[in-house]
Amino acid sequence: MATTLPQSEFANRLGELRDRLGEAEADAAVFFDAMSIEYLTGFGHIQTERPVVLGVTEEGIEITVPRLEVERVEPNPWIDAVHHYFDYPGGRPIEVAAEMLSGMGVESVLADADGAPGVMGYEGPALSEFLDLETQSWVPRMRWAKSDAEIDLIRESATWANLGHRYLAEYAEVGAHPATVSQRASTDASRAMLDTLGDRFEERVRGSGPVHAGFISAHETALPHGHTPNQRLREGDVLVTGASSNVDGYRSELERTMFVGEPSDDQVHHFELMLEAQTIAIEALGPGVPIADVDHAVWEYFEEQGVTDLAQHHVGHNIGMGGHEPPYIDRGWAEHCESEHTSYTDEDAVMEPGHVYTIEPGLYTETEGYRHSDTIAVTDEGIEWLTYFPRDLEANVIR
Amino acid sequence: MATTLPQSEFANRLGELRDRLGEAEADAAVFFDAMSIEYLTGFGHIQTERPVVLGVTEEGIEITVPRLEVERVEPNPWIDAVHHYFDYPGGRPIEVAAEMLSGMGVESVLADADGAPGVMGYEGPALSEFLDLETQSWVPRMRWAKSDAEIDLIRESATWANLGHRYLAEYAEVGAHPATVSQRASTDASRAMLDTLGDRFEERVRGSGPVHAGFISAHETALPHGHTPNQRLREGDVLVTGASSNVDGYRSELERTMFVGEPSDDQVHHFELMLEAQTIAIEALGPGVPIADVDHAVWEYFEEQGVTDLAQHHVGHNIGMGGHEPPYIDRGWAEHCESEHTSYTDEDAVMEPGHVYTIEPGLYTETEGYRHSDTIAVTDEGIEWLTYFPRDLEANVIR
Repeated sequence: MATTLPQSEFANRLGELRDRLGEAEADAAVFFDAMSIEYLTGFGHIQTERPVVLGVTEEGIEITVPRLEVERVEPNPWIDAVHHYFDYPGGRPIEVAAEMLSGMGVESVLADADGAPGVMGYEGPALSEFLDLETQSWVPRMRWAKSDAEIDLIRESATWANLGHRYLAEYAEVGAHPATVSQRASTDASRAMLDTLGDRFEERVRGSGPVHAGFISAHETALPHGHTPNQRLREGDVLVTGASSNVDGYRSELERTMFVGEPSDDQVHHFELMLEAQTIAIEALGPGVPIADVDHAVWEYFEEQGVTDLAQHHVGHNIGMGGHEPPYIDRGWAEHCESEHTSYTDEDAVMEPGHVYTIEPGLYTETEGYRHSDTIAVTDEGIEWLTYFPRDLEANVIR
Repeated sequence: MATTLPQSEFANRLGELRDRLGEAEADAAVFFDAMSIEYLTGFGHIQTERPVVLGVTEEGIEITVPRLEVERVEPNPWIDAVHHYFDYPGGRPIEVAAEMLSGMGVESVLADADGAPGVMGYEGPALSEFLDLETQSWVPRMRWAKSDAEIDLIRESATWANLGHRYLAEYAEVGAHPATVSQRASTDASRAMLDTLGDRFEERVRGSGPVHAGFISAHETALPHGHTPNQRLREGDVLVTGASSNVDGYRSELERTMFVGEPSDDQVHHFELMLEAQTIAIEALGPGVPIADVDHAVWEYFEEQGVTDLAQHHVGHNIGMGGHEPPYIDRGWAEHCESEHTSYTDEDAVMEPGHVYTIEPGLYTETEGYRHSDTIAVTDEGIEWLTYFPRDLEANVIR
């Protein structure tokens, strides 16, 4: 049972980063993105308007944080020195970070951005006002292929997601309220997970428990990003469920199309089309497979069946620390890799061992939607299913 | 009971936006930020790697969305035309948006960014490759002062947050598990809210219910952004709670420092210091008050009491559609307004009617933390408390 990432992972990641830095013309790599900082060092924080700045040179690693993160980051074994400002904006965060880098002997950097992300509310000087700065996007690319240790965590996530989904299926019934079914299933699965893992559980989730299971229902399922209706379940409702859990920062995705009571012939028809499309996609996966081919295979099936007008999105995406990660299973992926706007090449257009895909082709009629999602790893020899709730119709009818 | 924003709000916002556009040298205002698009039109979506692009001219409003958002946006009364691409990246989202703007007769734009936010995963061409582009940050600034209708929603949010917090206080006891107390309180308050509001409830929350109540406890309270420990409550534990609810996209913030069983003299001492600091901050609020003065007032009190080393952050921030919004109650706020890196002026350095502040000065010892947070609106005459759970020691001891 894998519940925490071994420290050797960070050594490997920092080693790869320094290899890239060694080949580049800069004194340091700098990161503003919370997930990149967590990926490299294991220090996680909530990204807000308060900048956090990690500097990595050949010799050392230092970080600038707001005062409120100091005690959280100090025990980190990879970070040699912690600098802080009191708060944003009065504490002059970028100035403190520039001083940190200057103290590290750094005059030129390759940074993941020229300052803290403005969408999070930061307004202030760019880092390039203080030193030579070019940008890089190394860590998001490094995250594509997961290590065995990372896949172990995603597999563990899928286990607890499955329990949440099992409770969801059990508590859903005619007359039940979606919000209550969801929260009850999440509560019970979270408690089972917390009590089972005990001290092995890494505390990463604020507020509520680590398993979440829920669904959208009825007319809202016609919208891939629909909401949960404030309406008790009725005979004939379609549900599109979703369950996940957070294991040391890693997640999985499990979704099922379910029926409250006997589905109509029309519902069975659309369910079976969706199920076959998902099967086609999964059978197309594997190492060396052009990523776009998987989306093409599903599209060809939809064309044969005359239902392309019911499709609203591509087949899937990668998952790991982020819920949506590249590469995306999209018909335009190869062209995207060749475009001048990415630094990708032909090699980035194929599936590699360690990629972890959600496979979720969907069909949406005017009144309801049909989508399963499974989380599947590409291995050296083929694939491994990480989620395992049954996919067939019979297992997904609530009676 | 206010549960939805009246459509007149959007007319006002679009009117103000067009006033700004009329004074500027551009054909259109363009928005990539999901919250800005929702603020202007009421169309909300989950911001991902798939760009959504809103264009506003004097004459019309059009939007480019991925296929999966089409049915969600089409009923919107403010948007005249919906353009779509199939998915990212194959659908060439920015090209579709550029064509939309061209069809609107637009050659120059003032945009909130030069393309979709890269932190969400978008990689592709910038919009400036297709037309003249300068940036503006109009909407985040427009959001500072809330209208009466917006404050009505935040007040409603505080009502349901209070119920969640009441359940939290009731379910917390020695031996109870934090995750279960949180999820049970959230479930029960959400159901009460959903059943009370019925058809008036705007479906905005995916998965779980609209009220969330939780807490961090014991050693984790020493960290302002601590996690929930996987450890049952024990006599003597300090809790730092948090409760909120989502009412048509608006939220409030309610936090309390609570004790499981009788607090020690040392705990009472720190609680009373924190409570007095919060009172000082609240008494300093009002229209025309320099924002930085409120942070100064608390800091002076901490200096008098010799506890500045226990402070880790400024007094508070605004809240509304976002959980953290400017202006921030920070000692450096006036300087920030004068800085060349913001477009603010002296006028932006003072509190105005419609600002809604969280007031949450905190103190953090080596072993535990003390922080209340209340949500308070600045009015024409003074202030209005929106949150109302009792703040005194006696009401916050769990026996």
